[in-house]
Amino acid sequence: MAGSSSDNVAATRGPLVAIGGAEDKTSELEVLTRVFTLAPEGEEEITLIATASGEPEEVLPVYQAAFDRLGADRVHALDIRERQDAANARNVRLVQTSGCIFFTGGDQLRLTNVLGGSPMLGAIRERLDAGAVVAGTSAGAMALTATMIYDGAAADALHKGAVKMTAGLGLVDGLIIDSHFLERGRFTRLMEVGATNPEHLGVGLGEDAAVIVHANGTLEAVGPGHVIIIDSRGMASSNVAELSMGEPVAVENMVMHALISGHGFDVGARRYLVPDALRDYLADTP
Amino acid sequence: MAGSSSDNVAATRGPLVAIGGAEDKTSELEVLTRVFTLAPEGEEEITLIATASGEPEEVLPVYQAAFDRLGADRVHALDIRERQDAANARNVRLVQTSGCIFFTGGDQLRLTNVLGGSPMLGAIRERLDAGAVVAGTSAGAMALTATMIYDGAAADALHKGAVKMTAGLGLVDGLIIDSHFLERGRFTRLMEVGATNPEHLGVGLGEDAAVIVHANGTLEAVGPGHVIIIDSRGMASSNVAELSMGEPVAVENMVMHALISGHGFDVGARRYLVPDALRDYLADTP
Repeated sequence: MAGSSSDNVAATRGPLVAIGGAEDKTSELEVLTRVFTLAPEGEEEITLIATASGEPEEVLPVYQAAFDRLGADRVHALDIRERQDAANARNVRLVQTSGCIFFTGGDQLRLTNVLGGSPMLGAIRERLDAGAVVAGTSAGAMALTATMIYDGAAADALHKGAVKMTAGLGLVDGLIIDSHFLERGRFTRLMEVGATNPEHLGVGLGEDAAVIVHANGTLEAVGPGHVIIIDSRGMASSNVAELSMGEPVAVENMVMHALISGHGFDVGARRYLVPDALRDYLADTP
Repeated sequence: MAGSSSDNVAATRGPLVAIGGAEDKTSELEVLTRVFTLAPEGEEEITLIATASGEPEEVLPVYQAAFDRLGADRVHALDIRERQDAANARNVRLVQTSGCIFFTGGDQLRLTNVLGGSPMLGAIRERLDAGAVVAGTSAGAMALTATMIYDGAAADALHKGAVKMTAGLGLVDGLIIDSHFLERGRFTRLMEVGATNPEHLGVGLGEDAAVIVHANGTLEAVGPGHVIIIDSRGMASSNVAELSMGEPVAVENMVMHALISGHGFDVGARRYLVPDALRDYLADTP
């Protein structure tokens, strides 16, 4: 477990972990181990939120077993289906005692539709501000950001309007996250997103890869898979604003990086970090 | 038909057209029309080469019908299976009288294996130098370059050695072409290729898109689909040379562009060309 205490709120905003959607849950647990060790010292309770999933009864026991194996004190498996479940005082209290909140995969629109504006999301934000780790896989990863993708086939993307977006859970700003990224060839989705607004950095997660968003804003790649960065800030031109819906989008100049475990990225400076540089960046992180 | 004559060899190297692999062959024929009109004035004979295909008897009549509809004088449908067919004097003569040579899709390794070093490939090079257009779709597009990709799943790419390459037909240098690019999410293939040697420009073709490689080296996108450019020349770092086979490849800084019909690219200057700029570039082209 990392060294910081949740008492020291100002200095200890917790990390986020966005996972690509098919991380190992039964063998080496490389990504989930990292999630667990990011929880604050002495806060080894975990809340699993399966709201995104259509089959919570299948998904929850798998994660429960994985975190039990990693040594969690208690694992609270919450199957929150309706908005009233997200206002339920007992559920909110379980979040408040957890050092790790974990969103399963499924449909990210269900996640925002049920949790948006709820007491439970409020409690999750408070836990994050107090140093807890918030993690999600697949839909649960994509929903972490202020704006999120919720639909759009990769083969159709790069046509105006093909990628559907809405407001996400808002736990981190400045990023747009996509999952199953290399396996489903979703580069075009982040290109269309980048064309519509080059401000936000595109982060594409391979299925057995994750990105840690550290408290100081540094990204760190974890796991056997790749994290692809698509940086549109230097985009020189695009026709997207002139097009009708469905017309093909042209894009001039986006920058791409492929990160493997141990490599990182400074979002503010748009700087790629090889392992030595990443270690320097993280030396000051609680 | 374009204005130049094949008599004036020095000034009239012909254009190449690389097509993404599922161009429209029965309706608007946007891409094939452009191929046909690039043949030199008065040289409306076309040779179809189905060597790459496993089902030439199904493929050849479709292209024959399309080029007949476009007004071809004669369409020679060659089903060249063996190396001796590629040395056959009658086949070579048909190429020598054609203003357009067209490679169908299939397996690019069959194309290089049968045509490599053959009198027929020699005749095709001579026709290109004399101003004829050489076009190919899918495997036929990927084989046009000096080095070509012939295998490697997109989901496995970005692991050292996953993308299989060998020498192509060598009709153009400086490019590596991939087909079915957006539909099969093949970005990772051109990223791995770029990491191994950033010299060559990656050109990814959407299925109903094509790129014309004009005689002066300018690229022009054609058709309803996208042409994706992946430019690794400015790559800042990669671990590829240090890895064992199968290990994940990291890449820092590749530049990406999405071209639509009418947009172009100056390969030498690595310059994106919006339609007005492309017209200026092509004004001097025969």
